[in-house]
Amino acid sequence: MKQGAPNLFQNKSGLKMKTDTKQRILVEGARLVHLKGYGSTGIQEVLKAAGVPKGSFYFYFKSKEDFGLELIEYFGNYIYGKWDRINDETEGTPIQRLQRFFAWFLSLNERNDFKGGCPFGNLGQELGDINERFRERLQSVYAEFKGKIRDILVEAKDAGELPGNVDPEKMSDLIYSAFHGALIQMKVTRSPESMENFNQLLFELMSGYGQQDKLLTGRV
Amino acid sequence: MKQGAPNLFQNKSGLKMKTDTKQRILVEGARLVHLKGYGSTGIQEVLKAAGVPKGSFYFYFKSKEDFGLELIEYFGNYIYGKWDRINDETEGTPIQRLQRFFAWFLSLNERNDFKGGCPFGNLGQELGDINERFRERLQSVYAEFKGKIRDILVEAKDAGELPGNVDPEKMSDLIYSAFHGALIQMKVTRSPESMENFNQLLFELMSGYGQQDKLLTGRV
Repeated sequence: MKQGAPNLFQNKSGLKMKTDTKQRILVEGARLVHLKGYGSTGIQEVLKAAGVPKGSFYFYFKSKEDFGLELIEYFGNYIYGKWDRINDETEGTPIQRLQRFFAWFLSLNERNDFKGGCPFGNLGQELGDINERFRERLQSVYAEFKGKIRDILVEAKDAGELPGNVDPEKMSDLIYSAFHGALIQMKVTRSPESMENFNQLLFELMSGYGQQDKLLTGRV
Repeated sequence: MKQGAPNLFQNKSGLKMKTDTKQRILVEGARLVHLKGYGSTGIQEVLKAAGVPKGSFYFYFKSKEDFGLELIEYFGNYIYGKWDRINDETEGTPIQRLQRFFAWFLSLNERNDFKGGCPFGNLGQELGDINERFRERLQSVYAEFKGKIRDILVEAKDAGELPGNVDPEKMSDLIYSAFHGALIQMKVTRSPESMENFNQLLFELMSGYGQQDKLLTGRV
């Protein structure tokens, strides 16, 4: 990893609070865990990057595991904050706003040479099988994220932007799958193509969903 | 990890060759790396599981990295072998055979309480950002896998099973994304739902693709 790799999930409000040691540990922890994974990130390394003396870690966190679980919350605040800003403060239809969020996520990774991906996906892949506390926490996070996608799909259906037979629950699950898988491809190919393809093709598919049946039955 | 966890990628031809020490190392390495990840799997642990004396590792592999790269080939042989058998030896349309492959992949993980996922996806997630040799090898593997999906989609189009406007290249990329992301969800939820949803909904979407335009323009 480049030493100068950007901190993609840098919580600006935290940076201003230079006295907030715990926040500094989380900011640097988020950067390192996002780029290297949880298992490969050492506590000493995080403390060094945060400029915090050794030994103070356990003043703020009971264990590395507790630190990791707080990181999930940290990532969530950052990502959901952006989600809300895009959703509440930008123009466009529900689907356009959803696609804008995924495009933002891609741009975030683009700044880092297409490394990184989604911290939730990374941690799920890394720890889902081997750490029950992480798995349970991530299960909630995934459900929350999919719930946000589902709500936008409901809005899009109500606005007539999606065919009435789209099941928002199932569709949000598929979108969430395709998003995470596209990010893995992004890492391996170091290119935006799979993310761009996901963010276009799946939405094209959705907009045509069920129209074939109408053709066959004559119901339009 | 349970000691009794099944070895999902156990190459039977290898098992018969009890004298083939290298094969035994790869069989046990595949099991451990699949369940724990590459970084968390120690060479000594693999040798112990394979019943091979310490020190003989470097007779077969130049480094842990070389061992890992050979594991990718090992996984590939196993997965592509099954792919070919399903494709060549089972009945059904091209799309049915493709869905059967994904269903097989799910059943493989089901035997392990929905742990594991796809070794290629796991390794891409874990190492894509931090190991250039792995990244390049995985990039070839992903391209090969997507090529196989693409070929089936071409066959399906030719047979009239898919609308003519489906782009097999782009669609195979989206299918590959959704497959890997669904496996991450499977790990975190410990349930087959996201995999089943991917393997049904995305194919339903595909079959209706572009039909809406025909409705609008009157071209049928």
